[in-house]
Amino acid sequence: MKNYLTLSPEELATEREVLETAYERVKRRHLSLNIARGLPSSRQLALSDGLLTAVTGDDTKSESGAETRQYGVPDGIPEAARLLARIAGTSPEHVIVTGTSSLNTMYDALSAAMLFGSCEGGIPWCRQDTIKFICVVPGYDRHFAMTELFGIEMVNVRMTETGPDMDAVETLVRDPAVKGMWCVPKFANPTGVTYSTETVRRIASLRPASRDFRIFWDNAYAVHDFIGHTDLLDILSLTEGTENEDMVWEFVSTAKITLPGGGISAFVSGKNNLAWFRKSMSKRTICYDKVNQLRHARFLPDEEALKKQMEKHAAVIRPKFETVLAAFDRDLAGTGIASYSRPTGGYFISLDVLPGTAGEVWRLCSEAGLTLTKAGATFPYGKDPDDRNLRIAPTYPELPEVEAASEVITLCVRLAAVRKLMAERTSNEKSVFGD
Amino acid sequence: MKNYLTLSPEELATEREVLETAYERVKRRHLSLNIARGLPSSRQLALSDGLLTAVTGDDTKSESGAETRQYGVPDGIPEAARLLARIAGTSPEHVIVTGTSSLNTMYDALSAAMLFGSCEGGIPWCRQDTIKFICVVPGYDRHFAMTELFGIEMVNVRMTETGPDMDAVETLVRDPAVKGMWCVPKFANPTGVTYSTETVRRIASLRPASRDFRIFWDNAYAVHDFIGHTDLLDILSLTEGTENEDMVWEFVSTAKITLPGGGISAFVSGKNNLAWFRKSMSKRTICYDKVNQLRHARFLPDEEALKKQMEKHAAVIRPKFETVLAAFDRDLAGTGIASYSRPTGGYFISLDVLPGTAGEVWRLCSEAGLTLTKAGATFPYGKDPDDRNLRIAPTYPELPEVEAASEVITLCVRLAAVRKLMAERTSNEKSVFGD
Repeated sequence: MKNYLTLSPEELATEREVLETAYERVKRRHLSLNIARGLPSSRQLALSDGLLTAVTGDDTKSESGAETRQYGVPDGIPEAARLLARIAGTSPEHVIVTGTSSLNTMYDALSAAMLFGSCEGGIPWCRQDTIKFICVVPGYDRHFAMTELFGIEMVNVRMTETGPDMDAVETLVRDPAVKGMWCVPKFANPTGVTYSTETVRRIASLRPASRDFRIFWDNAYAVHDFIGHTDLLDILSLTEGTENEDMVWEFVSTAKITLPGGGISAFVSGKNNLAWFRKSMSKRTICYDKVNQLRHARFLPDEEALKKQMEKHAAVIRPKFETVLAAFDRDLAGTGIASYSRPTGGYFISLDVLPGTAGEVWRLCSEAGLTLTKAGATFPYGKDPDDRNLRIAPTYPELPEVEAASEVITLCVRLAAVRKLMAERTSNEKSVFGD
Repeated sequence: MKNYLTLSPEELATEREVLETAYERVKRRHLSLNIARGLPSSRQLALSDGLLTAVTGDDTKSESGAETRQYGVPDGIPEAARLLARIAGTSPEHVIVTGTSSLNTMYDALSAAMLFGSCEGGIPWCRQDTIKFICVVPGYDRHFAMTELFGIEMVNVRMTETGPDMDAVETLVRDPAVKGMWCVPKFANPTGVTYSTETVRRIASLRPASRDFRIFWDNAYAVHDFIGHTDLLDILSLTEGTENEDMVWEFVSTAKITLPGGGISAFVSGKNNLAWFRKSMSKRTICYDKVNQLRHARFLPDEEALKKQMEKHAAVIRPKFETVLAAFDRDLAGTGIASYSRPTGGYFISLDVLPGTAGEVWRLCSEAGLTLTKAGATFPYGKDPDDRNLRIAPTYPELPEVEAASEVITLCVRLAAVRKLMAERTSNEKSVFGD
């Protein structure tokens, strides 16, 4: 593709005309497409149908002998703890099995920190003047929305190809008001970046000014490779036995392994943090759903079963990412107005468009019948300072729709860019020739 | 039985000898009995085995068309809302279906009140100097433990045969620091009392000094009659359209209808409170487990199915209560040292023993191999001011064990009383004849 940034005014005008016509044509197709959220497709959901009947009335006991239909075993049954430990890449003694939503587990941990402090003897965060969280951007909108709800000030740190800008992080944690940091360490939402070995080591070795500083290690895509295999260092073994032993709270879930909204999740950490978590957990609930834990442990009994399940997901997901990236490569590469990630796992492609046009691209797509994640959503307070980032979630629709959606996106990205570039030149001319 | 309070010193000594001998005999039996918690028995758990396979891979959609295996529908599927509304005795538009634990839903509501205020524009309770909750005693230990965790001051109000002492409640709510009140309005834990029509009307008409005062209406035993049928007024229809429209948060669950720890629950209230609850809920989780909601809705599709299920539970539970009460009637009636409730539903019998002996009865039972709910547990901070109340939970063991446990209890109640009465007389004599 031609580089839009170097086009002459005439070439730009011609390009714009072509794009406007194409856009009008697309609008007339009255599309109704949605690639806004990281949802597994129907075919992926069906991969876990065996789960639904994995526990029947005549066989409801855990290997431990515990009756899963009864109250009790608040930490979860051992076979479920093993499954979640396997996902987290750690050992079961680090695991408390929680409910169907790891987001809820993060919320529970955060609200406990707010109300009771993040460690034994810690001052409740809600009693401290200002507290701040480090937010890697672009990042996961639900992390930011939760943090905003709690009135925590969010400080942006930019994502690099190896993880968060660690120089910035190391400086920020010297501020005692900085109490937390959100991380999606593998196949980060939305960039797809996996934190490099060096990044994980630097995080594990942080010297935060506050001893109650906590890393929220949302390992949501721990086993969600769809091309090859990417390794992520186990941060808990790096911090174990060091003075940062209590610094990391890890969260995993089977939401995108089995059923979104119907999986199992876990709080994963060292013994002090587990004891801390149990303190509020024991007042919050008698136990989590052990029948669902047993279903999961039976459906995914070992490493091999987990691997096979993820390969099946990969087979469904991979072509969708390839389709989007093929369209981006065809229509956007070399234009100088877009860059995008090329993930090998996870659920998202991060698309950076011409600064100042992301909102407009979103609007154009929306008008053409394509729902994208709201521009700005990948930043705290919904504010992308450069109005540049868009999150593409291609997993839910079937391939033909992914293809159609990709075309709408590239068209709208180019159209918004050309319009903006032309408007800028006009205004530049005005500022040269005007009053 | 003879009235222990009027026995002569000699008669007391003789009685004591008989009881000590019996107690030694019981200890030699090395019993291992537990009637500490309100757990359904294995036979009750099996009543819901049909639930486990009520949703299979080929039939996973809600009547609304929503895919239950997918994210979405945060308020819950309509058929589940209807089921929970039926249990609460209200209409589905008052219902948000939540997770497996109504206790967790109460915690979520309470922690949101602490952090964000109990209503739109309310001051977070954690920012207010002292806040107090009215606790009806004896009451549910988990309510008290949760309230204590949040640092809320608990004020006791005694339970009467028609519900809480409403004169005391009406006075207390004039204190603006009083922000909440725990109620188990039907078959209260542990007294089995159902609030009378007049009590519910008086609660609905309270004039709290604080507009952010909330009633926690834990309707845990709404349909759990095991003898006849007891009516409870629907407090939401009483408050609807009045200035107390937002005063009541109701909670229900299927824990003791289907599976403890594996059921579904609900937050039930008026539209302002539902909107308030959604505000934190939407940041806490993407949705609750809709597959489990669908299982429940299919397993208990209508009034008739619910009624039949509860009749089956009643048939298992009723003989256990009858066994305990028969033992109490035989061994404790007329002794002047014990009184007890005679519930027609719920999970508990409340036993009041000679003041100052509940802890000792608990210890004696424990030493004889019978685990009872800890004495004091039915009071805030675990402190029964009269050291008098014990909670009997006869549902879990099978009938022979219930019978054995009942005998141990009545024996220990009498033994502790006789010992105490004799010690008192000795000390009285001392105070008469001593220095």
